[in-house]
Amino acid sequence: MRLAARPSGLPAPTDWELTAEPVSEPADGRLLVEVSHISLDPAMRGWMNDVRSYIPPVRIGEVMRAGAIGRVLASRHPDFAVGDHVFGRFGVQEYAETDGEGVRRVDLGIAPPETHLGVLGATGLTAYFGLFDIGRPQPGQTVLVSGAAGAVGSVVGQLAKLEGCRAVGIAGGPDKCRTLTEEFGFDAAVDYKNDDVPAALRKHCPDGVDVFFDNVGGTILDAALTRLARGARVIVCGAISQYNNTEPAPGPSNYLSLLVNRASMTGMVVFDYADRYPEATAELAGWLADGRLRAREDVVEGDVTAFPETLLRLFTGANTGKLVLRIR
Amino acid sequence: MRLAARPSGLPAPTDWELTAEPVSEPADGRLLVEVSHISLDPAMRGWMNDVRSYIPPVRIGEVMRAGAIGRVLASRHPDFAVGDHVFGRFGVQEYAETDGEGVRRVDLGIAPPETHLGVLGATGLTAYFGLFDIGRPQPGQTVLVSGAAGAVGSVVGQLAKLEGCRAVGIAGGPDKCRTLTEEFGFDAAVDYKNDDVPAALRKHCPDGVDVFFDNVGGTILDAALTRLARGARVIVCGAISQYNNTEPAPGPSNYLSLLVNRASMTGMVVFDYADRYPEATAELAGWLADGRLRAREDVVEGDVTAFPETLLRLFTGANTGKLVLRIR
Repeated sequence: MRLAARPSGLPAPTDWELTAEPVSEPADGRLLVEVSHISLDPAMRGWMNDVRSYIPPVRIGEVMRAGAIGRVLASRHPDFAVGDHVFGRFGVQEYAETDGEGVRRVDLGIAPPETHLGVLGATGLTAYFGLFDIGRPQPGQTVLVSGAAGAVGSVVGQLAKLEGCRAVGIAGGPDKCRTLTEEFGFDAAVDYKNDDVPAALRKHCPDGVDVFFDNVGGTILDAALTRLARGARVIVCGAISQYNNTEPAPGPSNYLSLLVNRASMTGMVVFDYADRYPEATAELAGWLADGRLRAREDVVEGDVTAFPETLLRLFTGANTGKLVLRIR
Repeated sequence: MRLAARPSGLPAPTDWELTAEPVSEPADGRLLVEVSHISLDPAMRGWMNDVRSYIPPVRIGEVMRAGAIGRVLASRHPDFAVGDHVFGRFGVQEYAETDGEGVRRVDLGIAPPETHLGVLGATGLTAYFGLFDIGRPQPGQTVLVSGAAGAVGSVVGQLAKLEGCRAVGIAGGPDKCRTLTEEFGFDAAVDYKNDDVPAALRKHCPDGVDVFFDNVGGTILDAALTRLARGARVIVCGAISQYNNTEPAPGPSNYLSLLVNRASMTGMVVFDYADRYPEATAELAGWLADGRLRAREDVVEGDVTAFPETLLRLFTGANTGKLVLRIR
C-alpha cells in the first residue's frame, strides 16, 4: 500500500494506491519476509505530512512505513534463517525484501506476534521510557494518562500501578473507562465524552497531578495543566486530537501553569532509547509472564487493502489497546 | 500605595489608593526602615490578580508588595542597627516597620542601591538560576532570550556570553536592539516590532536554539518554538505579553516542537533557590566588579505617588534594564 497523496484531515481512500509487483529472491546479504502482522499507530498520520519532524515523511509513491512482524521466506543474510519470526519496519505490504537493518528475531514462545508489536514493541517501550525516564514517578504520586485505553496509555497506567502510584486515565466512553479500572487496574477513569473533565480531575486527583502522560493534546492537555502539582512532569508523547486538523490548532492556553507549579513539559520519541530496548523489553516481558502486566490488542483480520480503513479506527476512537492488522 | 481594586487589563489609577498613617516606633524585635528604592517587576501584575499562583495575591486594601531598599531609622532587632542599608519586601511605601524576616543588609560599597535590586537582586538571581540550572547551556550553544533589553533578559544574555554561548536577543525597537549588541554584548538582536521574527530567528540561529529563556510568551514564544534544536531547553520565566490580557490568551500552538525536538519547557520561580542566593550573588558581584557583567538600571525619581505610572513603563516597553523608583 503506497501513499498516493498528502491527506488533508482524515486520510481518504484516494490518498492510497495499491500496487502489485513480483517478489524477487533476496540478493546476497538480504532476506525476504512474508509479513503477517502490521502495527497501526497514531504517529503514522504525522509521517504522511510533508513537514520536518523526528523522522522524514513517507514520500508520495512510497510503501507506507509500518512496523510489522513476519516470517523469513528466503535468506542470504547471516543473521536470519528461513522460518525465523522477525520484527522490522517492513511497511504495509505482504512481502518485504530487506538488508536486515533494524530487523530482530521475536520469540513467539513468550507472546504472540500482536503482543510483540504492542506491550513488547515500540508501544510498550514508549510507555516505559516516557513514564520512567521523563515522568520519574515516585510511589504514592498521581499519574494521569490521556488516551488511556489506547495502546501506549493502557501500558502507562499499569506501569504506574507497578510503581506504587495512583493511576488515573482519561478515555472516551463508559466502556473504555470500565476497561481502564477493571482490566488495567487504574484507580479512576475520566470519560471525556460524558464527564466534566476539569471537575472529574479535581475529584480524582485531589492532590494534583505529579506526572501527566499526554497522548492527546488539545482541550485535555489544557485541563490537565490546571491540575499540576508542584514540580510536575508532563510527557508530550503525542497529540492524537490534533493530527487530522486542517488548520493550526490553538496551543495549551494554560501553559503558564508550568511556571506557577515549577513544572516541566518534555517531548519524547522512543527511537532515542534504542540502545536500551533490550533491558526494557526483558523487564516488560517479565511482568507480562508473571501476570502483572496485561497485553490487550485489537486485531483486525484482512489483507493490506484493509489498512486505510483500519487506520481510521485510531482517530475515531474505535480501538482499545494495540491496533494490529493481521494479514490473512 | 495600596491596591484598591483588581485591575482589568492595564492597571488604572482607580486601582490604587494612597493612604497616610503615622509612623510608630518599632516594638521589641522589630525595626523601622526608611525606603529609598523600590523595585518594579513584571511579576507585580500577576500578584494583583485573585488567582492561585506561586505566591498569594496582594489583598484589596493591602500595601502593594515590592522588593525595596532602605535605611534603618530605628531598630529593636538584634541583627540590624540604625543606619544599616537593607533590602526587604518593604512594599510601595515610604516607611516600613518589620520583624526583619527576609531582610538582609546590602553593601553599598560594592554597588549602588538600584544595582542591589537589579543584577545583585532577584533580577540577576532569576537570570542566573533560570539560565544555569534549567537552561544548562554548553559552550558554543545558542541561547535565545526574549524581553532581552529588560532587567532579567539583559543579564541572561551576558551570562550566556560568559558561558561561551552565542547570545541572541529579542527586543522592541532599534534602540533597544542596538543596546543589546553594543552594551550587553549579544551576538545578534531581533527587533520584534520591525523584523519578521521567524525569518530573523532562522538567520541569527542557523543551528537552532539550544536554550530559550522566555520572558514574553505569546507569538514570540511560538516563533521560538519553531527554531528549537534537538534537546532544547525552554525556560518559562514570564509572559509579559499576556499579563494584561482581559481574555484567555491562546497557548503556544507550536508546542509539539517539544516532541519533534525532544525538548523541554520548564517553569521557574526564583524564590525556590533562596538557599543558594549567597553563592550566586557572590559570583554575580565578582563578574560585576571585574567588568564582565554590566548593570543597567532605569531609575525614575519621584515619591510613591509615581508608582502606578512608573509600573506601566514595564508594559509599554519604555524601560531598558532594571526599572527602579527612587523615592525623593
